[in-house]
Amino acid sequence: MPEQPFRDAAHRTADLVADYLAAVPTGPVWQPMDPAARQALLTAPLPHAGRPLDELLTAVAADVLPAPMGNGHPRFFGWVNSAPAEAGVLATLTAAAMNPSSAGGDHADVHLERTVVRWIAELVGFPHPPGGGLLTSGTSMATIVCLTAARGRAAAAAGWDVRADGLAGLPPLVGYVSGETHSCVRKAAELLGLGSRQLRVLATDAEGRLDPRALRAAVAEDRAAGRLPFLVVASAGTVNTGAVDRFEPIADVCAEQGLWLHVDGAYGAFGVLDPQIAHRYAGLARADSLALDPHKWLGVPVDCGCALVRDPQALRETFSLVPAYLRDEEGDQLGWFSEYGTEQTRPFRSLKVWATIAHRGRDGIAADIATCTRLARRLGELVGADPALELMAPVETSIVAFRARPAGLDAAALDALNQALPAAVQRRGRAFLTGTVLGGHEAVRACLLNATTTERDLDVLLAEVRAAAAELTTRQ
Amino acid sequence: MPEQPFRDAAHRTADLVADYLAAVPTGPVWQPMDPAARQALLTAPLPHAGRPLDELLTAVAADVLPAPMGNGHPRFFGWVNSAPAEAGVLATLTAAAMNPSSAGGDHADVHLERTVVRWIAELVGFPHPPGGGLLTSGTSMATIVCLTAARGRAAAAAGWDVRADGLAGLPPLVGYVSGETHSCVRKAAELLGLGSRQLRVLATDAEGRLDPRALRAAVAEDRAAGRLPFLVVASAGTVNTGAVDRFEPIADVCAEQGLWLHVDGAYGAFGVLDPQIAHRYAGLARADSLALDPHKWLGVPVDCGCALVRDPQALRETFSLVPAYLRDEEGDQLGWFSEYGTEQTRPFRSLKVWATIAHRGRDGIAADIATCTRLARRLGELVGADPALELMAPVETSIVAFRARPAGLDAAALDALNQALPAAVQRRGRAFLTGTVLGGHEAVRACLLNATTTERDLDVLLAEVRAAAAELTTRQ
Ligand SMILES: Cc1ncc(COP(=O)(O)O)c(C=O)c1O
Ligand SMILES: Cc1ncc(COP(=O)(O)O)c(C=O)c1O
Repeated sequence: MPEQPFRDAAHRTADLVADYLAAVPTGPVWQPMDPAARQALLTAPLPHAGRPLDELLTAVAADVLPAPMGNGHPRFFGWVNSAPAEAGVLATLTAAAMNPSSAGGDHADVHLERTVVRWIAELVGFPHPPGGGLLTSGTSMATIVCLTAARGRAAAAAGWDVRADGLAGLPPLVGYVSGETHSCVRKAAELLGLGSRQLRVLATDAEGRLDPRALRAAVAEDRAAGRLPFLVVASAGTVNTGAVDRFEPIADVCAEQGLWLHVDGAYGAFGVLDPQIAHRYAGLARADSLALDPHKWLGVPVDCGCALVRDPQALRETFSLVPAYLRDEEGDQLGWFSEYGTEQTRPFRSLKVWATIAHRGRDGIAADIATCTRLARRLGELVGADPALELMAPVETSIVAFRARPAGLDAAALDALNQALPAAVQRRGRAFLTGTVLGGHEAVRACLLNATTTERDLDVLLAEVRAAAAELTTRQ
Repeated sequence: MPEQPFRDAAHRTADLVADYLAAVPTGPVWQPMDPAARQALLTAPLPHAGRPLDELLTAVAADVLPAPMGNGHPRFFGWVNSAPAEAGVLATLTAAAMNPSSAGGDHADVHLERTVVRWIAELVGFPHPPGGGLLTSGTSMATIVCLTAARGRAAAAAGWDVRADGLAGLPPLVGYVSGETHSCVRKAAELLGLGSRQLRVLATDAEGRLDPRALRAAVAEDRAAGRLPFLVVASAGTVNTGAVDRFEPIADVCAEQGLWLHVDGAYGAFGVLDPQIAHRYAGLARADSLALDPHKWLGVPVDCGCALVRDPQALRETFSLVPAYLRDEEGDQLGWFSEYGTEQTRPFRSLKVWATIAHRGRDGIAADIATCTRLARRLGELVGADPALELMAPVETSIVAFRARPAGLDAAALDALNQALPAAVQRRGRAFLTGTVLGGHEAVRACLLNATTTERDLDVLLAEVRAAAAELTTRQ
């Protein structure tokens, strides 16, 4: 390829991106796309002739950069989507230029992935035997990886080779979750052929946590009916309220009953780095597997999830299928990453993780996490102090679930108001939060992941919520 | 974030990457890492303090950029790993800075993904109804997506809700493949709980293609035994030899028998753009689903696969699970991408696809593909003209499978030689190819994906093969 046009375009991209990131905090958080611009993107015909790099950058600046999702902004509080860590952003360019497949072999990306997986495990205090994990596209995939290993172990214990024979002849394998378990677990159970009806949704305690007594009782009932209990999924931070299950008593039941304990730490696992809330995570290290997302609280650019397992062999026995043309002639004992998960060709995700962690260091990351949990507690206080708002759950990590509760509305009107609230706030462009349902009530939730968010931003958020609620109430 | 250090680091990254790419063609294709450098990467401790961006870039330049996989080089002929398209490389930086989750909503990335999926379908001549596909991390995942939809349709036809009830009570679902089907299909069958024994490996015709008569006979046998035939997987370019199955007769059997036809076009689907070989792909558009990899022949930086389906509802019925907190208030009829596949948070893969296609245009891509197939045919001729080499399969697309066959070696010695050959070539650093097994014989294969490769490079490759073979024969 001719060198100079590429170099020039790379520098122009550098400026576009630096300009873009510098402008994010002062622009609208999000705004609907101009319908004509959206239509132009959606209907663009397949080009027959090519265009020079420079023209493409002009098009990106005009048509793409002005229409972001909004999660880079300090007043984006929606779902669990973070602003990108700047070191991670830069790493993606280098990773793409090198463009390896981090499947296996002797190149920097493969070795770096082993290291960052160990770093991630160390950050959250999970065991990290060699081969005990790998990067994935997110927690949805990491959950599939971990639950497939759990399924394989349970089938083997029943004398069944599930890889060869499938599930058709086996009694139902049963897993236990709570009503607050993320939907990716159900998706994994469906994908794996287990069936979502074989996920028992257990009664929870008053704080919405998995109840070890309910678990023990359900296991006994399923065993009595000839089913095979095999899995418990606990949460290290639920998506709705950020609640953390109590791992110790759950791990005790799992140990006693021979169940695989999987923890969903997608959003919340890194919360353990904040000394103020670290105690909530006691027993996390006893899990058999942990799924978590560097692309959430760490700010590693999407995509980057991570699957960690206590027993590396459980993964390799589940996925390895080394075909002749991929043999590792050099005899690396750990084998290829593709033997530990679902992907064959695998991107160089580790460089952006490495850069993100190395740039802030463990201490900087812990400080950022603590900033977020402090802001969340502060937001909880502000909500609690306003009689027209109602906190819907205790603030355990960095998610604040609440609802608007202006005087004089009945239950149905409150639900209607709160259901419409997120979109109304979003449309105003000064803050972004999303909705959910808690205890049968429509609610909104604000997720704090951005350490550049300030208390002033919290005031703006609540002002926007009040203004949007007023708009909606007047309109009714 | 402070703006200037980021901007400076972005420009330095631009130069690092431009320097790196400019130097690739004149350096070694690949070389083993220096053991001390590898050890340093593998054992780096979790840093407690952070480091400025500039120091990180110095570390990347010293420790990472010098140890690539090699697939950027014009003499890399291994597996199916391409050099990155320069427009795609630059797009990754912008995509990471914007950092959306392309799950759904109204932002540029979501709309752009619909467009590039349509472009991909149009490039290969596959139907493209709205909602008929999505980008994935690769063909392994695209295959899982497509086969899950096929499983759901087959179960529903048997009156079974596989999402809710799993596979435990259903008769075995049977799929049909050939001995040359990529291992990702077996991996998918295992993951989905179907069991690899329920994949019948059909006898193939003389050219190694799926045989419609063998298929029809096997289906009849399975039905007679009470099993449920549901799936045929055909290849649009096998990984070993680049062979393309005959789709028309297979599609006829599938239509007649009510089987889901899935085509694996990971490597080869884009070959249809070369008028010289387009006829081999007749009937491709009759498949129910097609998995293919923009991160292979198109050169889109890893990762980027694509799942295409004839019936969009088949995907949505398989995967949609829209939970309350993700409701699409705006009522986009197509819903979210996360309702069509396995990923919840999804990266902005579409920008690198858009840039790659827009930079070359359909015509430029077709020309590059034709260059590769021409080079492959030329390499086949060069192999055929050398009595010490043996072509192991016809050159149908851009993969050339052959072996060294020096006079005077018996079958066992030939196998030993050819098994050792790829690593011996790789170690010499001037060309890179990989090995496989064909018809019971050890062989090597060269995959042509890089349109900057020249005939001179083919000469170097064969000179290296001869030299490495001589080394190995003398050593014996
Ligand atoms: C608690 C929790 N679990 C799992 C997931 C799914 O993770 P991903 O989107 O990375 O697949 C999420 C994402 O929102 C989450 O918040
Ligand atoms: C023919 C074929 N099918 C499937 C795959 C798997 O694709 P991916 O590595 O993108 O998951 C490959 C990759 O090498 C391939 O060559």
